[in-house]
Amino acid sequence: MAIYGTVEMGGTKTSCALGSSPDDLSQELTIPTTDPSETLGRVIEHLATGSPEAIGIASFGPLELRRTHPEFGRIRVTPKEGWTGVDVVGPFSQALGIPIGFDTDVNGAVLGEWNWGAGRGLGSIVYVTVGTGIGGGALVKGEPIHGLSHPEMGHITVRRHPDDDYPGACPVHGDCLEGLASGPAIEGRHGAPGERLTGEVLTKAIGIEASYLAQMARNLVYTLAPERIILGGGVSRMPGLVERVGEGLASELAGYPGLAEHRDGFVVLPGLGRLSGLAGGLILADVAFRSSG
Amino acid sequence: MAIYGTVEMGGTKTSCALGSSPDDLSQELTIPTTDPSETLGRVIEHLATGSPEAIGIASFGPLELRRTHPEFGRIRVTPKEGWTGVDVVGPFSQALGIPIGFDTDVNGAVLGEWNWGAGRGLGSIVYVTVGTGIGGGALVKGEPIHGLSHPEMGHITVRRHPDDDYPGACPVHGDCLEGLASGPAIEGRHGAPGERLTGEVLTKAIGIEASYLAQMARNLVYTLAPERIILGGGVSRMPGLVERVGEGLASELAGYPGLAEHRDGFVVLPGLGRLSGLAGGLILADVAFRSSG
Repeated sequence: MAIYGTVEMGGTKTSCALGSSPDDLSQELTIPTTDPSETLGRVIEHLATGSPEAIGIASFGPLELRRTHPEFGRIRVTPKEGWTGVDVVGPFSQALGIPIGFDTDVNGAVLGEWNWGAGRGLGSIVYVTVGTGIGGGALVKGEPIHGLSHPEMGHITVRRHPDDDYPGACPVHGDCLEGLASGPAIEGRHGAPGERLTGEVLTKAIGIEASYLAQMARNLVYTLAPERIILGGGVSRMPGLVERVGEGLASELAGYPGLAEHRDGFVVLPGLGRLSGLAGGLILADVAFRSSG
Repeated sequence: MAIYGTVEMGGTKTSCALGSSPDDLSQELTIPTTDPSETLGRVIEHLATGSPEAIGIASFGPLELRRTHPEFGRIRVTPKEGWTGVDVVGPFSQALGIPIGFDTDVNGAVLGEWNWGAGRGLGSIVYVTVGTGIGGGALVKGEPIHGLSHPEMGHITVRRHPDDDYPGACPVHGDCLEGLASGPAIEGRHGAPGERLTGEVLTKAIGIEASYLAQMARNLVYTLAPERIILGGGVSRMPGLVERVGEGLASELAGYPGLAEHRDGFVVLPGLGRLSGLAGGLILADVAFRSSG
């Protein structure tokens, strides 16, 4: 691949870098995601110094991704102040005059993991990030799923764990999956962020968290039939959580459809660690570059 | 298209016909699905008289659809007696020596609806049948989703309706979506099949049913972002049910992601009535025919 720019925009911080693969990323810069013009301006200025051939942006959403839609390239209604309706693609195109790829943060991550990480060699995988929010990107035959807008997997329903009376942290739905299993939900329920819990409280927190993520994994298996589910984000690194989700999934599936492939190594951590999103941005850039020619 | 054979295999009955579109189907035959060799034998004999160029089979599952798998073309573990492990594709290939397309009943139906019915002109739709069981097929960019096996959307989790104490009819999961919202669940809960209920019992049954299907629709929106959801099967024809599911979906989404397209005409009945599956079999045959050349 040529040298591309890659941008991962999160609600809290934005990272960018130049390169052609996760192994040769250079000039990595991480800044807080403040107001749109400052944030986008700093990233554009930084990447411009490397003269990339194209840029791929993997962003928090919801986004307008339909190319024929008048709002294409913008962020839709978001609780993040000042960002509703913001044009993300436009400023990059106008400043640099190069092809710009654009997709959700999790669609970026799933592409990165598929090309270089835990999804290599597979055709159909799902990447779910569990952190401040919960979101998922699904790849079928090597392409992220888009339809009317894009998936927002954090907002599915789950059944309450019998020991959980936490009301839920989702500003829209209260106790949807994100409302019960995101980082803020763990903090709200147990009084401290997941990484600061210890002893019995930590054990209880992991048990509840695993039960919600296992329900999610079950619903993904029955809806998408993926070959692997990759769990990213800060919460997924709680000790032993991913293994517990795998066990919980087996119990949720209850032997149906009885595929051996669902047993070991079906729910895994990202192969690229924290680089899945930036790696995916390189693919988004490459796709934009190739389709511009 | 050439003249193809199409087969829709259900757990109770099997239909087949010859034609090139749902408008010119001929020699339609419907027989009970009894033991495998008798059922498949009668269909093969019947279709052979029309000398089709290829045959498409849309079948109840679970199925082994991975072409590289040694069990490709067979029915996997099923509660239907005598059908576990049965080779469906083999007998057709061996008897007729023509290309055979093979997919789930709902992947057939979603293809039929996309090409000729309620999904025409769209890229990403879901077809869900609600009858003896619940199953769904999703089409993204005109192709059914496959991965590790295929979706089994009836077996997702839903939250119980507050007025529902029916234990659930799914032999595997008890009170999954299929366990609470299939035809047998309605009969088990209310004492008679949906089409025989009247008055207040019918009103209550429709309310509970709509709430479960609205949760399913919500989870499909957040997982797949389809442009339309088509509800087929006998239960979906309960009076006013589809409209109630649409209203329930709006309430489940709670304004997020706030797309106008989710409002009217997003959850609909099939455009082809009972012919979705047979129509889809023609597409499966056509795909098999073209890829054999």
